Amino acid sequence: MTAGGVIRVGFPGGSYEVVVGAGALGRASVELGRVVGGRQVFLLSSPTVRSLHAGEVRVALRAAKVVVDLEVPDGEAAKALDVAGRLWREMVAAGGKRDSVLVALGGGSVGDLGGFVAGAFLRGIPFVQMPTTVLAQVDASVGGKTGIDLPEGKNTVGLFHQPALVVADTGWLETLPAAERRAGLIESVKMAFCLDPSLFEGIEAHIGALLDGQPEVLSDVIAGSIAAKAAVVERDPFEADQRRVLNFGHTLAHALETALGYEGLRHGEAVGWGMRFALALAEETFGHVGDADRLRAVLDQFQLPPLAPLDPAQLLDLIGRDKKATEAGVAWVLPRELGRAEMVHVPASIVAAVLARFLTR
Amino acid sequence: MTAGGVIRVGFPGGSYEVVVGAGALGRASVELGRVVGGRQVFLLSSPTVRSLHAGEVRVALRAAKVVVDLEVPDGEAAKALDVAGRLWREMVAAGGKRDSVLVALGGGSVGDLGGFVAGAFLRGIPFVQMPTTVLAQVDASVGGKTGIDLPEGKNTVGLFHQPALVVADTGWLETLPAAERRAGLIESVKMAFCLDPSLFEGIEAHIGALLDGQPEVLSDVIAGSIAAKAAVVERDPFEADQRRVLNFGHTLAHALETALGYEGLRHGEAVGWGMRFALALAEETFGHVGDADRLRAVLDQFQLPPLAPLDPAQLLDLIGRDKKATEAGVAWVLPRELGRAEMVHVPASIVAAVLARFLTR
Repeated sequence: MTAGGVIRVGFPGGSYEVVVGAGALGRASVELGRVVGGRQVFLLSSPTVRSLHAGEVRVALRAAKVVVDLEVPDGEAAKALDVAGRLWREMVAAGGKRDSVLVALGGGSVGDLGGFVAGAFLRGIPFVQMPTTVLAQVDASVGGKTGIDLPEGKNTVGLFHQPALVVADTGWLETLPAAERRAGLIESVKMAFCLDPSLFEGIEAHIGALLDGQPEVLSDVIAGSIAAKAAVVERDPFEADQRRVLNFGHTLAHALETALGYEGLRHGEAVGWGMRFALALAEETFGHVGDADRLRAVLDQFQLPPLAPLDPAQLLDLIGRDKKATEAGVAWVLPRELGRAEMVHVPASIVAAVLARFLTR
Repeated sequence: MTAGGVIRVGFPGGSYEVVVGAGALGRASVELGRVVGGRQVFLLSSPTVRSLHAGEVRVALRAAKVVVDLEVPDGEAAKALDVAGRLWREMVAAGGKRDSVLVALGGGSVGDLGGFVAGAFLRGIPFVQMPTTVLAQVDASVGGKTGIDLPEGKNTVGLFHQPALVVADTGWLETLPAAERRAGLIESVKMAFCLDPSLFEGIEAHIGALLDGQPEVLSDVIAGSIAAKAAVVERDPFEADQRRVLNFGHTLAHALETALGYEGLRHGEAVGWGMRFALALAEETFGHVGDADRLRAVLDQFQLPPLAPLDPAQLLDLIGRDKKATEAGVAWVLPRELGRAEMVHVPASIVAAVLARFLTR
């Protein structure tokens, strides 16, 4: 596995660093000084995260000219257009300029919203990701995807806006509820299974310690996941091709979350169900999927909460609206074997049949 | 002067064509087919423009799979966050996908809003600019700048999103009120004075026919303005440097428009006043500006409407919030002579003194 440290992520026209591991905030002081030095900083956070971590972050931002707080609700409620509108107005009123910097301190929602708000403020200002959850550290903070939700669907509005710096301090994860931490690790399982067999083997070998939150194992898996994601987004910054395998499990997951009103199921848990479904769809499509039992065995360890009763017709309708859909229909990420997945347009009739079996099981 | 035709504009990672002149819509049929063929098209327009031009545009879009109408209010009222939010929801509800295409048919407001809505829908879908006003044809349609207004300031929210194609049919300008057409030509004067001495000489030589809307002269000046703008945005796609001279006259213009609540003064007229002010500021700063009399003589021909009484303190406050401002203060575009302008940080005390004289004159 990869040790914590600094991972550089390139994109067309630039690159940024991800400082990762226990104590990453302290180790990132030179990089932070370079990005925020002498500038107005907007520190975006939610009440829970602010009470836990804003103190040390303000110390780390001491090179800034001034730090202005921006507050949003905890959780997915932050990712709303009216929240973005309110933040933009507060930023103008506070004298925000093109060289102001936004720091997004929090979970995936704060990062997604913060990137969008920074990306569309005065046609784009620099922003720093400080992800405080496993989910945000391994997935949302790298790659430049930003977005907010509409009542009609998750991440329907958004843009690509690359961070200037990412600080993923795994020390912050100690304050995270265990169930939250575990749900986030499902994204690591996803990346490992599709992209990095040795990372997957590490997860298999240390699954107990990982689920218990043992700091060294957690830090290693998170650094390994970020490195795996960084490698793929570097090759495909705008999700034209290879990067799309990161959507493994997400087509059904987004539909589940929308159908449940984003309640009762964590994103990682929805992805876990989505991976199980994509696996079933892959077996139906290909006849056989290599290492399927190994993936199922790891997912079993996560003990996903049972799904509430759902209307298959509604789910199929939501799947059809997936933003990865094109005029040619919905393309599914289907695993072939450990380390290999493909984009496949699956006929709607087959999706419906597999979904019906899946929901009644 | 440049004849109407096709101008190619490059940007990092691609390029697009601007088809310009009388009958451009008909001449663009191959390019349009390539962009919209087989796809869902959202045709964004306002009531006035739709009643005048949507019929022929729908014919020109015949290669599309389906055309869905999106309607926004006429004028600057379209550039609001709640309008953008409504359009995104309508687009999701209509089954909009990543390969759907948005066509923005209308003036600068429809183009600015349309580019923003397309740029942030599902992290960006292609869009076609069909500018129907002089202002939109010469300035807003080329360069990829998109944006909406907040109550606190114009274009405060937006992003860079390059069009897939621009169709600037100067035949559409025949339905434009004469005052509207003339106000738009002030942007041509701006570009010509800063960037293209031969275009400026052409405007000087044919100013009467131009103000009367004589079709050949109008078409030539518009094609020349687009070519001048295309050349500068190609060299500086994200407004880091040379492109900033296009803001000549705009620092005061935006403050005037905000102070007046976007009423009573057309954008081009505000830019005309802004150019006169920047010229006064340049003379104060440099002692002398070459060809100043020639610029004043051309602007005189436009007979700008008088400014309503304005509070200088409020204008200075609005100028300080200009989005081109950085922590170093407001950078002004000041002309040196025909074909040459510079970015200069002017001390606030000098701006205040020149503004006081300017407003009492």
